[in-house]
Amino acid sequence: MCQPPAVALSLTVSVLAESESASAALVVPHSPVGHHTDLDALRAWAQHCDVVTFDHEHVPQEVLAALAADGVELHPSPDALVYAQDKLAMRERLTALGLPCPRWTRARTAEEVEAFAAEVGWPLVVKAPRGGYDGKGVQVCREPAEVEPWLSGVGEGGLADGLLLEEAVDFTRELSIMVGRSPSGQAAAWPVVETVQEGGINTEVLAPAPGLDPDLATSLTEGALRIAGELGVTGVMAVEVFEVTRVGPDGGTRAAYLVNELAMRPHNSGHWTIDGSVTSQFEQHLRAVLDLPLGDPSARDAWTASANVLGGDYAELYGTYKHLMARDPGLKIHLYGKGVRPGRKLGHVTVYGGRSGDLHSLEALRERARHAADYLQGVVTE
Amino acid sequence: MCQPPAVALSLTVSVLAESESASAALVVPHSPVGHHTDLDALRAWAQHCDVVTFDHEHVPQEVLAALAADGVELHPSPDALVYAQDKLAMRERLTALGLPCPRWTRARTAEEVEAFAAEVGWPLVVKAPRGGYDGKGVQVCREPAEVEPWLSGVGEGGLADGLLLEEAVDFTRELSIMVGRSPSGQAAAWPVVETVQEGGINTEVLAPAPGLDPDLATSLTEGALRIAGELGVTGVMAVEVFEVTRVGPDGGTRAAYLVNELAMRPHNSGHWTIDGSVTSQFEQHLRAVLDLPLGDPSARDAWTASANVLGGDYAELYGTYKHLMARDPGLKIHLYGKGVRPGRKLGHVTVYGGRSGDLHSLEALRERARHAADYLQGVVTE
Repeated sequence: MCQPPAVALSLTVSVLAESESASAALVVPHSPVGHHTDLDALRAWAQHCDVVTFDHEHVPQEVLAALAADGVELHPSPDALVYAQDKLAMRERLTALGLPCPRWTRARTAEEVEAFAAEVGWPLVVKAPRGGYDGKGVQVCREPAEVEPWLSGVGEGGLADGLLLEEAVDFTRELSIMVGRSPSGQAAAWPVVETVQEGGINTEVLAPAPGLDPDLATSLTEGALRIAGELGVTGVMAVEVFEVTRVGPDGGTRAAYLVNELAMRPHNSGHWTIDGSVTSQFEQHLRAVLDLPLGDPSARDAWTASANVLGGDYAELYGTYKHLMARDPGLKIHLYGKGVRPGRKLGHVTVYGGRSGDLHSLEALRERARHAADYLQGVVTE
Repeated sequence: MCQPPAVALSLTVSVLAESESASAALVVPHSPVGHHTDLDALRAWAQHCDVVTFDHEHVPQEVLAALAADGVELHPSPDALVYAQDKLAMRERLTALGLPCPRWTRARTAEEVEAFAAEVGWPLVVKAPRGGYDGKGVQVCREPAEVEPWLSGVGEGGLADGLLLEEAVDFTRELSIMVGRSPSGQAAAWPVVETVQEGGINTEVLAPAPGLDPDLATSLTEGALRIAGELGVTGVMAVEVFEVTRVGPDGGTRAAYLVNELAMRPHNSGHWTIDGSVTSQFEQHLRAVLDLPLGDPSARDAWTASANVLGGDYAELYGTYKHLMARDPGLKIHLYGKGVRPGRKLGHVTVYGGRSGDLHSLEALRERARHAADYLQGVVTE
């Protein structure tokens, strides 16, 4: 998805692809096949690159260190990327910086689990510090018995350093804010968006987050820019947060946030920017990792609504285009060239327009986006 | 430039490229090298394509006929494309349809030139009916001696059927209108734009054309849609016209148009649509040739201003990005991956915004676009 802005800017993208049929390999001419843990493959490929960046967070630190020692320019750097790879490291660092997080602890034993539960109450959110994505590696546990299988894995793989336990946050909704930051330190934030979740999967993104308290928007933007700066992030980063309600000493309430996850790459919650912002997250990521000045992250319309397309009833989706395009000439369809599997994130659709502050006009956009996603999934057939 | 929307729609593009370093071959994985007059190369490539379309108009009719006889789906069809290949055929057909053209004739001899000049006066515009582009194959001749070298070529190459002579139109400005049309007959027009020319080369595109008479906009839109329908155009087409002033019987004046050129492909005067319209000309072209429903051609902003980037002082343009991007974070840069030659069209820049009907806000956009183009060309250095 970086290929379109790379084409516009006449930049040459090369992808180390997991297979010849990988989405990126289908659209990028220079796509040697190699695994992201294969140092020889990475070295052979990286020697032709001015800058190396990442599609996911799973390249091991020892591999990154070897590439860095070769003189390969990596963005984000391994020192920053570790906070997107390791949720325990992230929690420790953000807590040290005074940024708001759910209450959390590291646990290796049933006793440590019980002690934390005594403090924050059940249920607990149990996370594998490494290797999780899209709700995988996360479980809401309602009693000690549900944590037991996790404890048996401690010391290995993603649980090498123990479990990350977090309180189950009583949140109003989930928000995300994306920022771009360059090696020179320039940084820019897109508007805060609402990410609607169903079953742990993000299904809709609404930009900007409707009805967001302006003070919360400001503190969240400042927080995300501070994280980017303190962690030395280069490229784009998503900060996914819970919106919560806090009661003040006078009994009044105010909106606040708790950081849920960090992703140091273009992110699903930023796909709306392809059509909805002056500078898409993919163009911004290219600019940032090349240390070019960042583009304007402003929204182009009052509202932009995106809905994710998950694998559904159809083995191939081209057959849906005729109806969808005829029904809604303003619909922007984005499919990722992935094979269809039930529940797999295959693409997204975006619509934009409406009137600023008018929630009815946002609802009309949401309805169009949701209909299109439902139709692509076979949930509706007209 | 069709690759970005093809990526979004998960369509596979394959290009028969003139060389391995052709712009399209740099960004499209399936780009066998072959010449557009080499029927064997075309056949080998086309057998893997559901639909074949064109980057330029120069594939010979006999080659197209052979491909069509093989069952290759060609859009636009050879029967339509001939009117973009052969300016004499175009003038004959549009005149037969009653569409407004400059006065014109076919000439093979000095006597025929003199007879036409006696009717419309000097200077005359002399055109090669076939093979011209970007002002090449066109000359404004002020006297018979200037036409003589042309006459000596009659009977060969682009002059096989004679010269096309046209009156030199006293026009107000040049406009262009683009339409998309599908094999099913659905058609959609973008707003009429003004194309600013310098030395026969289009340097700026202003969308919509500022201060355009609404009646002229309507008649031009109707005319372009009629041309597309009557000629059976599939894909996108640009109709380039002269805006002229006509004096009515009551002495009043009104704006009118005369068709200058047709191009049956994405066109320079439609590059503004990449950033400025809900549906870009490249996405629309893909939709149209695949007989998918067409997308919304509306402008997204009050004004969009593009400026073409011609080859200038710099051998490579990446070095200009730092200053340009820092100066104008809203600037959209589009370079085409071509080698730099003086005067060669290398790319364009686009900015959008302003207030509808407010010409001052358009001027501010033009200034930004022109500055960027000048900087990319080395005309200004700050």
